[in-house]
Amino acid sequence: MHMYYEKYAHLMISEDFLRTLDFEKVSGQIEDFIREQCAQAGKTNLVVGLSGGVDSSVTAALCVKALGREHVSGYMLPYRESSSASLDDAIEVAKHLQLFWRVMDITAMADGYLKQHEPDASFLRIGNICARVRMCALYDQSAKHNALVAGTGNFSELMVGYMTQYGDGGCAFEPLGNLYKTEVWQFAEFLNLPRNVIDKPPTADLWLGQTDEGELGLSYHELDAILFQIYAESKSDSEILQSGTPPEQLRKVQQLIQTSEFKRKMPPIAEFQLC
Amino acid sequence: MHMYYEKYAHLMISEDFLRTLDFEKVSGQIEDFIREQCAQAGKTNLVVGLSGGVDSSVTAALCVKALGREHVSGYMLPYRESSSASLDDAIEVAKHLQLFWRVMDITAMADGYLKQHEPDASFLRIGNICARVRMCALYDQSAKHNALVAGTGNFSELMVGYMTQYGDGGCAFEPLGNLYKTEVWQFAEFLNLPRNVIDKPPTADLWLGQTDEGELGLSYHELDAILFQIYAESKSDSEILQSGTPPEQLRKVQQLIQTSEFKRKMPPIAEFQLC
Repeated sequence: MHMYYEKYAHLMISEDFLRTLDFEKVSGQIEDFIREQCAQAGKTNLVVGLSGGVDSSVTAALCVKALGREHVSGYMLPYRESSSASLDDAIEVAKHLQLFWRVMDITAMADGYLKQHEPDASFLRIGNICARVRMCALYDQSAKHNALVAGTGNFSELMVGYMTQYGDGGCAFEPLGNLYKTEVWQFAEFLNLPRNVIDKPPTADLWLGQTDEGELGLSYHELDAILFQIYAESKSDSEILQSGTPPEQLRKVQQLIQTSEFKRKMPPIAEFQLC
Repeated sequence: MHMYYEKYAHLMISEDFLRTLDFEKVSGQIEDFIREQCAQAGKTNLVVGLSGGVDSSVTAALCVKALGREHVSGYMLPYRESSSASLDDAIEVAKHLQLFWRVMDITAMADGYLKQHEPDASFLRIGNICARVRMCALYDQSAKHNALVAGTGNFSELMVGYMTQYGDGGCAFEPLGNLYKTEVWQFAEFLNLPRNVIDKPPTADLWLGQTDEGELGLSYHELDAILFQIYAESKSDSEILQSGTPPEQLRKVQQLIQTSEFKRKMPPIAEFQLC
């Protein structure tokens, strides 16, 4: 077992399941992709929301590698209830990458809706409002800076729909969209990103104390092992169960994939027959 | 020539170009589509933003026909600079359709960003902020009411990208997405919607005095005639020019189609080869 796994057992991947990536090569291919996206759109710059988490940190690092740090802006978009530790981590990443960064508090924007119209909204609704309001801010910054908005979604999250549609899901392209979450951690190690960003438990920060794994009901290690068997190995249900996957975990993941399908598609358009 | 065209010459369509729809039948098919979308998503209600324009009015009318008025909520989402005449029109439509409606001013939300972070933003940026902030509000209302957000885009707008990505373009489905704009006006007549909504010049209301046709640089009549030749008749460029279309109009429309392609697709995901 690799040292990495000994040290970060909570991120451990069964080596039976997951592929081993050449991150040097993957990085180069994603950088090419990012440059192509900008060229196609006639944009010379990128904006990225920096949450202090591993996905946005890896995204920002790849954007900097693709275009150079003077062409990438990072935005920290805290709400009044957001974790200040997350903000500190995001600032640390921005300083590490030496890109232009800016903190834009979204409290006035989100509360401009919530206090006036929906003071009793649930945590979940507040979290989704914040995710969408952040998209509004990032898109405005992209308009200001002749930039595209880089997405930060990874394959694991996209497949189970663990994102806010038109919120963090609202972006120009997804550079990490074919990487499993557990691979994004490995990528962060490869990119020498600040230790703290890699080690801390993943959270969407929608509310205090939220962790992705708590909310999903299984660890990313478990999720990725199941997704890999479904998508990379094209295994049948019975094969997946034979590999030792708990049936309730497989059902849970299949259900998440199915109920989040709408987040991975454009809005369907009504068809009609001409007469 | 039909009476309709005599009265509303500014909406006139060359009968050579456009199909004649059986709106009774089209209405039924769109209502089926709306019900299917709700059933698939497990939602029993719909929310729709009412701008006072013809697209959102027809959309709301079809939603009411599909689910019944007690399952549809209409939201007027004015900004401080929005036209009060548009708000009056939207309220008239809501009263006409007898659905639940609510005015939610978005000024505090939009200005919560603009005043604090970007006081010098252009009209265009303010307009896009407003469009996206409206989406935030509608999605929150859909969460509150176990509802889907009905889109209001028509084929003409979708093809030339005349909407804000993740703003008015952010919805669960597009009931009018295969109808040309000029057909939406005909549909509004068929549905007996308030006269004023049909007769007034179309505007995205992004700023005062804006009209779609002024901003697009050609009338919907001209736009639809060109789109119809491209998409319904699959004509070549030279055939379209032979029909009398001004070359600069054709070029303009082709350019709009091409540069707005990204709005009709999901964000592309970086691919890489495994080693």
